[in-house]
Amino acid sequence: MKIKILTAITLAAGGFVALAQTNQPADDWKPAPSNQPGQQYPQVNSEGRVRARIRAPQAQIVQLDISGVKFPMTRDTNGFWIGDSTPQDQGNHYYGLAVDGAEVPDPSGSFIWGSGAWRSDVEIPASDQDFYALKNVPHGQVREVHYFGKTSNADRRCFVYTPPDYDKHPGKRFPVLYLLHGYNENETGWSHQGRAGLIMDNLIAEGKVTPFIIVMENSAAPVGPGLAPRGAPPAGTPPRGGGRGLFDFSSFEHALIEDVIPFIDANFRTIADQQHRALAGLSMGGMQTRSISLKHLDTFSYIGIFSGGSIATNEVADMKAFKKKVKLVFVSYGSRELDPASRRGGRGPNSGDPKANVAALKAAGINCVFYVSPDTAHEWQSWRRSLHEFAPLLFKNH
Amino acid sequence: MKIKILTAITLAAGGFVALAQTNQPADDWKPAPSNQPGQQYPQVNSEGRVRARIRAPQAQIVQLDISGVKFPMTRDTNGFWIGDSTPQDQGNHYYGLAVDGAEVPDPSGSFIWGSGAWRSDVEIPASDQDFYALKNVPHGQVREVHYFGKTSNADRRCFVYTPPDYDKHPGKRFPVLYLLHGYNENETGWSHQGRAGLIMDNLIAEGKVTPFIIVMENSAAPVGPGLAPRGAPPAGTPPRGGGRGLFDFSSFEHALIEDVIPFIDANFRTIADQQHRALAGLSMGGMQTRSISLKHLDTFSYIGIFSGGSIATNEVADMKAFKKKVKLVFVSYGSRELDPASRRGGRGPNSGDPKANVAALKAAGINCVFYVSPDTAHEWQSWRRSLHEFAPLLFKNH
Repeated sequence: MKIKILTAITLAAGGFVALAQTNQPADDWKPAPSNQPGQQYPQVNSEGRVRARIRAPQAQIVQLDISGVKFPMTRDTNGFWIGDSTPQDQGNHYYGLAVDGAEVPDPSGSFIWGSGAWRSDVEIPASDQDFYALKNVPHGQVREVHYFGKTSNADRRCFVYTPPDYDKHPGKRFPVLYLLHGYNENETGWSHQGRAGLIMDNLIAEGKVTPFIIVMENSAAPVGPGLAPRGAPPAGTPPRGGGRGLFDFSSFEHALIEDVIPFIDANFRTIADQQHRALAGLSMGGMQTRSISLKHLDTFSYIGIFSGGSIATNEVADMKAFKKKVKLVFVSYGSRELDPASRRGGRGPNSGDPKANVAALKAAGINCVFYVSPDTAHEWQSWRRSLHEFAPLLFKNH
Repeated sequence: MKIKILTAITLAAGGFVALAQTNQPADDWKPAPSNQPGQQYPQVNSEGRVRARIRAPQAQIVQLDISGVKFPMTRDTNGFWIGDSTPQDQGNHYYGLAVDGAEVPDPSGSFIWGSGAWRSDVEIPASDQDFYALKNVPHGQVREVHYFGKTSNADRRCFVYTPPDYDKHPGKRFPVLYLLHGYNENETGWSHQGRAGLIMDNLIAEGKVTPFIIVMENSAAPVGPGLAPRGAPPAGTPPRGGGRGLFDFSSFEHALIEDVIPFIDANFRTIADQQHRALAGLSMGGMQTRSISLKHLDTFSYIGIFSGGSIATNEVADMKAFKKKVKLVFVSYGSRELDPASRRGGRGPNSGDPKANVAALKAAGINCVFYVSPDTAHEWQSWRRSLHEFAPLLFKNH
């Protein structure tokens, strides 16, 4: 049923065009788990549809807007407007309302930073949501950390996940994963909508990972001359080919190597060497990971690229050194990103076919993993799953 | 000038009624420091007015709403609506927009939890804002902590501020302040709009306080039979007199004493005794502080009540024991709360006149401080200042 509905959705350049649904929506609506406490709307049903509701007694046109696709809402006699979306993928989605042309957040939903703004957030329950659920297990901490970065000459902020036993064993030191967000996102994304802390808590409780620290910094990059801020692509979408729209990652590269890592090593109990340092990121953060790790093989030994390209063998200057230094190259995508009909491919420039690149690296003797998130696109559910698959592979045998 | 304008504002039951201003607003508008990155609106001017702007091309009526007071906005030829408020107090204010009757957040402002919802937030620059500014000083951390509370039988969340040298000296232990929010607020308030972490960082950098841990928990209390949730008073407003509308603090009292404090003492390097434990709160949190500390004199030695009542001598069962155990009773209000013409008094039931109560406790030999925040009401600027005055008085000579 779910699959049938999903195949009825055609992907078109610039967004989804939903075909008319002949079926009535399944009548099993429940308040979304992301709602503000006590709020009954938005609701979601078992098909992944979103039903929004707002009181707007004098309004003429009200619409639900999910990632730029608008769904009509209709007015009842009490001045409330209500309307449903087509089925959405499982997991987190940014959305908003349009009230007589004003694009505003939904006062009932919660808020997350995504696509360059604080936006309303609706969570579609997922079949595998247990891995990022809040459970009665020992929890790590997510720490908000301010510091001054000399290289960037700025007050910087990051969020640092420390595992549950970090404070219990003051003599113990931990490996570190530097985990980067996407374009138009910020340092809050991985712990808020990405659920990085809860994913780690649950993996640690199950004994599936070597506990490590996660550093979530702001890796916002200035855009290149071919990609003006106005009219920039939606959240997390990397720029595309042909020499235009390239991001310049050099300033963040300097900040990461010269400000962030030294600060973290000085202020957290890290194992401050290459073998115990990983770099990963989603979308633009995956492109940054690829670009920076290839230049700094003495700094990172684990590389994770989520929906952000891959590494071709011809990009590796010295395969022998690469093989010796790099313990893992992990490449992942949402399954819909790999669909040839989709324009939301999310592959970085020059990266080629990610599956073929992974196979070629494997053939060259590199430890590589290619992961595809089922039935998801260029969105957080792909990246939550990617972290969940990636984390258990890190820092083994050290 | 500022004073003249402010005295032209008459306080009426249920809200402000702004008298017509003959003067034109001062033309020195600047984007509010609380705006989302890059957003030019809302703006504020030197009189503390707020100027909001939103694109709503099909709308008929758009208004700016600050704490329930609506200000008209007018439409320009491009479909943008713009409008100014009357002068507001310095500091933080919750606000929203009404678009054809839909009460929505402003997509340009940032969001904070206040008055029972995520709301837009505008920051009016204050003459004394330096004490809560982000500066290049050593910073503590604000840690998001999840744990299971057996007494409350619930997953609990708190934010814990640890001072800058907490991780530098793993053998050192610290005193703790338990700092409570107001009615319809939550555990995020003190570190977000309250700026508790930055206030402490700056005080510590100036050598003005004994560094201590701050625990910010959710002290939401069920409302009593006389005060239904619908129609409840605005954010932070305590219920009023006469046996109706009383909060029941017993469930939070049990949670604090049996869940929160034992968890903190087991998981942070606290000095786990009465002499090194303080309890303070704002509005309802001040009432909780008063109620719980009087019952648990063996648990807390410092008491801070911000806009939430005071302690009368006849409420102290054993003044000799109280004098021995309690090192400080700190009571504070915004100056406008003490204005007899104001209905926003914010004094808890049975507390009487706070200044007289403080004087009586002083006469009984108790170390008491009464602080009045200049030109502020029942609002965060009063409470930021209260914390800033209170913190240096804690844990001296221990």
